[in-house]
Formats: sequence, C-alpha cells, structure tokens
Amino acid sequence: MEGPTRYTADAVVPCDGSGRVLRPGFIEVSGDTITRVGSDPGATGVEPVRQVRIDGVLLPGLVNVHCHSPMTLFRGVGEDLALERWLSEVLWPREARMTEEDVFWGMTLAAAELLCFGVTTSCEVYFHPDALLDAVVAAGSRVVLCPAVLQLPGQADGGRWWEAPIAAIGDLHARRHGEHGRVDIGFGPHAPYTVPLDGLVDVAAACRELDALLHIHLAETESEVARFEERNGRTEAAALADAGVFDGRVLAAHSIWLTEEDLALYSEFDVAVAHCPQSNAKLASGIAPLARLLEFGVRVGIGTDGPASNNDLDLWEEIRLAAMLCRLREARADALGSEAAMGLATVGAGRTLGRPDLGVLAVGARADFIALDDTTTALVPLLEDAQLIDHL
Amino acid sequence: MEGPTRYTADAVVPCDGSGRVLRPGFIEVSGDTITRVGSDPGATGVEPVRQVRIDGVLLPGLVNVHCHSPMTLFRGVGEDLALERWLSEVLWPREARMTEEDVFWGMTLAAAELLCFGVTTSCEVYFHPDALLDAVVAAGSRVVLCPAVLQLPGQADGGRWWEAPIAAIGDLHARRHGEHGRVDIGFGPHAPYTVPLDGLVDVAAACRELDALLHIHLAETESEVARFEERNGRTEAAALADAGVFDGRVLAAHSIWLTEEDLALYSEFDVAVAHCPQSNAKLASGIAPLARLLEFGVRVGIGTDGPASNNDLDLWEEIRLAAMLCRLREARADALGSEAAMGLATVGAGRTLGRPDLGVLAVGARADFIALDDTTTALVPLLEDAQLIDHL
Repeated sequence: MEGPTRYTADAVVPCDGSGRVLRPGFIEVSGDTITRVGSDPGATGVEPVRQVRIDGVLLPGLVNVHCHSPMTLFRGVGEDLALERWLSEVLWPREARMTEEDVFWGMTLAAAELLCFGVTTSCEVYFHPDALLDAVVAAGSRVVLCPAVLQLPGQADGGRWWEAPIAAIGDLHARRHGEHGRVDIGFGPHAPYTVPLDGLVDVAAACRELDALLHIHLAETESEVARFEERNGRTEAAALADAGVFDGRVLAAHSIWLTEEDLALYSEFDVAVAHCPQSNAKLASGIAPLARLLEFGVRVGIGTDGPASNNDLDLWEEIRLAAMLCRLREARADALGSEAAMGLATVGAGRTLGRPDLGVLAVGARADFIALDDTTTALVPLLEDAQLIDHL
Repeated sequence: MEGPTRYTADAVVPCDGSGRVLRPGFIEVSGDTITRVGSDPGATGVEPVRQVRIDGVLLPGLVNVHCHSPMTLFRGVGEDLALERWLSEVLWPREARMTEEDVFWGMTLAAAELLCFGVTTSCEVYFHPDALLDAVVAAGSRVVLCPAVLQLPGQADGGRWWEAPIAAIGDLHARRHGEHGRVDIGFGPHAPYTVPLDGLVDVAAACRELDALLHIHLAETESEVARFEERNGRTEAAALADAGVFDGRVLAAHSIWLTEEDLALYSEFDVAVAHCPQSNAKLASGIAPLARLLEFGVRVGIGTDGPASNNDLDLWEEIRLAAMLCRLREARADALGSEAAMGLATVGAGRTLGRPDLGVLAVGARADFIALDDTTTALVPLLEDAQLIDHL
C-alpha cells in the first residue's frame, strides 16, 4: 500500500472537542482518510510519500447543516419581507418554475461560494436532486441531500401527494447514495404546516427503512407554532413525537419557538437541531434557545439556510452570530464561548448529520480540510503574537 | 483652474438618501471635492482632464463612528468576558502600559484594515493622540479624534484630574485640527461612571468653545445604568441634559438602556448615537432601541467599537447586524430595510459627526470613495442579473 501524504502547517486546529491548537501541527492522509494528527511527526515506520506545506491555519472543512443552495439564483429577491409572505408570494412561485438546468447552475455557483468560505459539506433540501448532485460531484465537494417533500404552487393536490416524492427519493437513494464517497441521501419533508401528519409518518417510515436522515423545518415562526397548536391541541414536537416521526434520525431546522416540554422531547428522541441564526434574524423569526438546547444535551450544528434569506453562504458569519445571539438571549458574555461556537460548524455539525467523521481532524475522519489565510489584517495579530509585546 | 477627474463605473450608489443606483454612473472630482454625480456625463463646458474607469460598484467611503482602533494590538485578549470585568481586569491595565509607539503601530494596522473594508473615516477615542494622528495621516485616511478623558489604573487621582486632559486636548486642537484637511479634533470623556458630572460639565464647556464634538459612552450596560440611577436619582441622560452637557455637539456611543424619556431628551437636544451592534452583542450588553431612536428623529451612525470587542474593523458586518438585531428586537422583517442600514454607515454616519460632507457622493461632498468588488461569488448574481433569467 502506498504511504500517506503529510500536510504540515504552523497551526493546526483539530476541532475535536479538546480545545487543542497544535503549533506547529501536521496531519497524515491515506486515500480519503486521516491516519495521524499531531504536533511532532517524529520518526515512524511508515514514512510519507509526499509532504505538503500548508500556508495558514489548517482546519477541518466546515459543515453547513441547513441549506437550499441553488437559491443563489434568488439572492436579493424579496428583500425585507417576513418569512411567510416571502415564501408564498416570492419564493415558491419562482421555485415552481425552476428547471433542472437552473438547479445545476445555482448549485454550481453555491458550491464555489461554499468552498471559498471553507465549507466542504452542506446538507441540502431542494428540488431536482439529480441536477444538484451532478453539480456537487463536479465541484468536488460533499453533500447530504434531502430532496424536498413539498407541494409547490400549481402542482396537483392529490390525496396522498407525498407518496410520489417519497418513492422518488427512495429511487434516488438506490441510485446515488454513497456516490464517489461524497453523497448521502436523506428525506426533506418541508414542515408540519405544509406536509400533513400522515405524510410525515410515511416519510419517517421510509427513512427508518433506509437508515436515512429526516430533515424538517420545525418551530420556525411564532405564528406557525400558534396555528399548529390551535388546530392540533399540542405543539409540533409533541405531535411528531407521538406519531413516531421522531423514531429515527431527525434533524430539525430552526427550532426557535420550543417549550421546555419540546426541549425535553428533542433530548429524549435525540432530535438534532440545524440552528440558522442569520436567516432567523433577517426574517425576524426570532432567536433560538441555543443555550437551553445545549444544556438539554441536544446535538446542534449551524446552517446558513438558503442564500436568499442570508444573503450568502458564509458560515463564519453564522459562527459569530450564533455566539452573539446566544449571549444576547442569555444576557451573559460567557453564554457561548468561541470554541463552542466553532464546534457548531465543525465536529458538532457532523454529528447532527450522523457523520462524526466530518468536521474534525482525527484519526479515521474524512480528509476534508481547509487552510485559513491568517495574513489578512483582521487576523493580525493573533493572540500569541500580541502577547509577544512584552510590556503589554 | 485644472479641470476635474471623472470616475466612471457600471454602478454608482450615491447613498444620498434618494435610494438611487446609477447604472452606469460617474462622479467628477476637483481637488478633494465632488463636483458632479450622475448617470450620463453628456457634453459640458468643463471637460475632465483625466478619466478613470472603476471596476466594481462605486460607493462613498464608509464612516465608522465609534472606534478605539489601536486596540488591534489587543485583538482576542480577554475573550468571552462581560464588559465590566473585561475593561477593569484586562483592558485598562494594558492600556495604562501602552507607549506612543504602540499606539502608532496599532493605529497603522487598524488604518490598513479599515481601508481594506472600505472605511475611509473613523471616529476614534484613544490615548497618545499625536501618535494616532501620525498613523492616520501617513495611511491617507480621515479621522475624527476625540482623545479619551479617563483615569487609567495607576494614574494619580487628583481632585479635578480631568482639567489636565481637557487642556491637553485643547492644545492638540490648536495644533492639529484640520491638518491635511483630514483631521478633526473632539473630546472623549469616557462615561458618566468614570468621569464625574463636574468633569463632564467642564468638557462640555471646552467643546462649545471650540465647536468640537463631545463623544461619550452612555447607557451601555444595564448594571451601569442601574447604579447611576441609584446614586443620582435619575438617568444618565437626564443628569447630563440638566447639567448642560447636552448643550453642544454630542455623540453618545452604545445608548442601549434608554427610557422613553431619555429618547425624548436625545431628540430635544439633538444628541446623536453611535450604534455598536456587534460589540454590544459580543459583550452581551444588549440590543439598542434603533427603531425607536430613528422614530424619535435621532441621528444614528454605526461603529465597530474597538477591535478587541468585535474582533475586527469590518463595518459591513455592522450594517448587516444593525438590520438583523433591529428586526429581532421589533419582531418585524421590515423594521430596518437594507437601504436604511447602509445609510447608518454612510450619509447618516457623517451627520452624527457633524460632517454631512462625508459618507455620500454628492456635489460639494469630500471625494472619499471606494470600489466594491462585485465579482466575489457571494455577490453573484446581483438582483438585476437574476431577473435576466426570464422564466424565473
């Protein structure tokens, strides 16, 4: 077997939960897998066949856990509207008109943007899944694709309309799950206010059968939650838990308007959360109870949401905003520290997707890694440099 | 007289409150002043002696209205602490040890960073003002410098200790106000909890004598405000208004914890606000009542605050965050629109500094302008391009 490739850098941040910064550091990679991580490679039996010197800080590729990336084509459309009008009046009519080709180019642009921001994996909920996958595969990035289960305006309102999309996703899973080692297929039922409970139960059954991720929007706006409770006499989380929709791998986007009972259900059923601080702020949806979620032991990652509600795919902004909004909500500057915030876009994010091998530099993890340019003025001086000014 | 220089671009955003985007557009500049702005230069009597084609979007230079820029040297120091401990335990002891040379290099680094982010003017509150000015002048940028009136740890606690800094600032004003057309000198009494009311009254008198800006931190934390009221039986704003401190040009940074009566006083005395959304969020100080301030007709600009509480000098982040936090506070996605948010870093910011000739492309304004690179993936497509996809 061919020996590994060794990548060395002045600083390596493994994001493995240890808080370590390796200065200097290295990783070794065989195939698509990390085989060693450390500070001093020393002498080993297996010498690397290639050594690559990385400028900047070596980090795991970031993981964006909630995205509708082909909406790059709608960036800036319907600015300054609240979520419900923005969806029904601006977005959905346009999405109903999108072609396969639109989705391919929208995702291609997004993949380039995601990679520029150091995001190597995104979890996507969208239409025309084959075109989206073709774009990701060509771009060289990684995706967890949960095709949308949703009726767009103008689509026939048959009785059990969700059965056709469920079957189509099952077919897609058979054809493309695992493609190039970079494609995971899950299911993306939109929300409890757009997919009836019967439909959600059917989706959940299909997910369990394939051990696939069920990715859904939950408790995003106060009015959505109020209407659901009025009609159903209980919260979205309570209804879904009761119906067995939480019996499987579930990732709930947004999850802003949760009761204490809902938090306990998330914890009990190990429902993970895709926290989208910027989208929630832009659309005035609210500030999710991030600190409480973490206290309940819920797995949380962050996502940009679609670029039309953000308006970009810069996950670094989400990392900062997650920390800032958590501090504001809790009125404590230590409510979410810098390292915990980074974890939401790295190792914590991978875990929400059932992929603990993503977003981390560790033995056995995927070799998705990035180099952060540390020469921009906004990163000078780094802490250690500042401390080199003796009298300060 | 030599003719003007004409700068042309595919898009020019004047930020003059009209909401116009000139596509294409041009400005003409004579000396340091804009003499024409428009879409079609046509034929005129005075032909430009030089034409310069600008790639990207032409905008006025941004104006950062509250900054302690040499704190670039403290970037990342004391992370995750709340404001009061962060100041007293981490920052002030270090600032007391800073030399003139430290301030020169800290400001030099900051000026480079500010210019990279398109910020051509910053309003600075800091120590060692001559060194700070030397750095700004050398960098080619513009400053409104309000040297700090504040006792740092270890400095003698004489009775009327503020008289010496007031005299020093008066001397600085005589020596350097107006230097190269790029230096304004004001006064920076730190806050009502660090400078006694007698001192603030003396500073205000000095400001009125020179028609100089009085720039102060007000109502930044809930605990500061509560302690002040407990000791003085009224709010900071009420006390300052009563004492005559508001009788002049006043710019109040932060201004988060204001009562309705305080808002009315800001309006009555035309006190301007330096809104610092990111610093307020990072330090968990709170969300300022931006929508209410604007409803009261208060002039508002935005500032990064020092890079140690931010942690960079990227004013674009502040523009976005100002809009997002305003929407969250008001629970309305239209609480602050994109154009209004841009105004806080441009024409609105200039007005808070008593400089309506800054942050705007208009006849008679200073020719401080920037080019925004519109080829980064995060700005593709621009709205008009998206609409070119006919069927969407």
